[in-house]
Amino acid sequence: MNPAKGYAAQTPNAELAPWNFNRREVGPHDVQFDILFCGVCHSDLHQVNNDWFPGIFPMVPGHEIVGRVVKVGDHVKKFKVGDLAGTGCMVDSCQVCENCRQDLEQYCLEGNTQTYNGMERDGSSPTYGGYSNTIVVREEFVLHISGKLDLAAVAPLLCAGITTYSPLRHWKVGKGHKLAVLGLGGLGHMAVKFGVAFGADVTVLSTSPNKEEDAKKLGAHHFVVTTDETQLAEAKNSFDFILDTVSAEHDFNLYLSLLRTNGVMISVGVPPNPAAIKAFSLIGGRKSLAGSGIGGIAETQEMLDFCAEHNIVSDIELIDIKDIQAAYARMVKGDVRYRFVIDLATL
Amino acid sequence: MNPAKGYAAQTPNAELAPWNFNRREVGPHDVQFDILFCGVCHSDLHQVNNDWFPGIFPMVPGHEIVGRVVKVGDHVKKFKVGDLAGTGCMVDSCQVCENCRQDLEQYCLEGNTQTYNGMERDGSSPTYGGYSNTIVVREEFVLHISGKLDLAAVAPLLCAGITTYSPLRHWKVGKGHKLAVLGLGGLGHMAVKFGVAFGADVTVLSTSPNKEEDAKKLGAHHFVVTTDETQLAEAKNSFDFILDTVSAEHDFNLYLSLLRTNGVMISVGVPPNPAAIKAFSLIGGRKSLAGSGIGGIAETQEMLDFCAEHNIVSDIELIDIKDIQAAYARMVKGDVRYRFVIDLATL
Repeated sequence: MNPAKGYAAQTPNAELAPWNFNRREVGPHDVQFDILFCGVCHSDLHQVNNDWFPGIFPMVPGHEIVGRVVKVGDHVKKFKVGDLAGTGCMVDSCQVCENCRQDLEQYCLEGNTQTYNGMERDGSSPTYGGYSNTIVVREEFVLHISGKLDLAAVAPLLCAGITTYSPLRHWKVGKGHKLAVLGLGGLGHMAVKFGVAFGADVTVLSTSPNKEEDAKKLGAHHFVVTTDETQLAEAKNSFDFILDTVSAEHDFNLYLSLLRTNGVMISVGVPPNPAAIKAFSLIGGRKSLAGSGIGGIAETQEMLDFCAEHNIVSDIELIDIKDIQAAYARMVKGDVRYRFVIDLATL
Repeated sequence: MNPAKGYAAQTPNAELAPWNFNRREVGPHDVQFDILFCGVCHSDLHQVNNDWFPGIFPMVPGHEIVGRVVKVGDHVKKFKVGDLAGTGCMVDSCQVCENCRQDLEQYCLEGNTQTYNGMERDGSSPTYGGYSNTIVVREEFVLHISGKLDLAAVAPLLCAGITTYSPLRHWKVGKGHKLAVLGLGGLGHMAVKFGVAFGADVTVLSTSPNKEEDAKKLGAHHFVVTTDETQLAEAKNSFDFILDTVSAEHDFNLYLSLLRTNGVMISVGVPPNPAAIKAFSLIGGRKSLAGSGIGGIAETQEMLDFCAEHNIVSDIELIDIKDIQAAYARMVKGDVRYRFVIDLATL
């Protein structure tokens, strides 16, 4: 018995409410850390609402988790009690498949174990996320967190950060590239920060003219209001990459037309319906539409270290856990700049 | 006046019938060649039928054209009377834009001039294709054709050949790669030949079990019947590349699931409706869906030279031009192995 408390949805679409449950005992390769902060990802709400697939309930959401180690297993080598620690979207994987062996645990061929709304490798023990006071994770999936940065603002790096960092690194986006970031939310604002840090010329594409000032403050060099036909026409055939962070319905063909020849649009958002891609949108310029999901553990550590070195964190609003439903309501309206983070001291 | 004769559709959906028209006079930079053979591309019928966009009528289709030079302009340097010559899908471009300057005339930012159903750079003179006895093309868009190969079987290289050669070269498909070719038609059979020539491990994906023998004869190493659940399950997560040559409706998500992590599906067919791409089909393995259109002039020449060197041609059925409607009817049913070519001596 390893008692924990958190906020859970007891059934699909239910409001989150306090819930007591048990974590597993700390095994020889496990790290237990008490959670200080947990980011609120749009996917938390999607999963509570069964938007993508039938979820596992009760569900304790949260996969942007930062805390301090309270117990380590006998064989744990990389963490000791008192260390800062973090965990992102996954807490395990098969660790032996071709992808896992290449540090691509996110694409584990047997499926990685999601931090919540997933099953442990035994196939029967549900995982519970970071809207809780403590968590037990096997050492390989625990990240080192620098004490140099604001810990609350580090939490969103574990999902919003790595989800944008990884594709920008994979496609080697940097100096000499024109990068457009579609959508200026939790993921988008991190994409801007990383794009700028990597030396790209960064444009924010947004339907909200009132986000221009913020985009520029975040470091973006340009801003295009995508509902303005003139601005849109000027942006045609101009970007090497578009990082598409939008999870709402949108017209992919419109944005593909903004890519240069050989351009790549990388989708990290998950709209509810399939994207309708016209053949000529890709053929007329040898363009690509790609997808990317979070990042591997080694790359996540690399990202955290990069952020510590370059003083990059998420822009956040810190909330009490009792206000989670209000935060969800504001998130749905895009009314957050740019990530809610739960202060677990309020639990 | 430079009189020509050919077969034309006078109106959308009309049957093709003999038609007399005029080519432009041979200008200082033009090459005129009498047409010996012209391939029959599925896009010919799509355009006669206005499937993609409103066409220009009367329409003389045909963009896989091989013939012999009969006249050259004063400034023409690369061709002389008596040379073999060929022309593919385009006969002009702006020649000054960023893409044209990089030998990517197919992606000319002002739009290339299509060999038929297009407008010359003057914006008002329609172009007429290769279902005719003679053609006038500016030197830069005329290809050298080797006399070593069967000229009738060379004709389809000008579209079916370059359309498959170009993406395989661009994505550097070769030794160590598992390449799947989706659809074994005019384009697909060339993709198999090139994939094999480049050293890839080639699998044909087809709904028609009776094409297996042919696929193997063409050099394919494996054959997967995509309606067979067992074969499909075995093929999951296995290909580095899929070259999708299918112009009919098909489920892109199904084929994307056959790609390995980081795999690329390259679409060169143009189905009538947009492809419905589920976000997880791409995100779940950092996969890409790309498009590719024909190839540039320099690359088309490279492809023709490669074919001459490696003895690669299209598998064809030679037809009389009077039988073009019957050929279209058979093509629609996929009843051609693998390309009809018109013998213009029958005009």
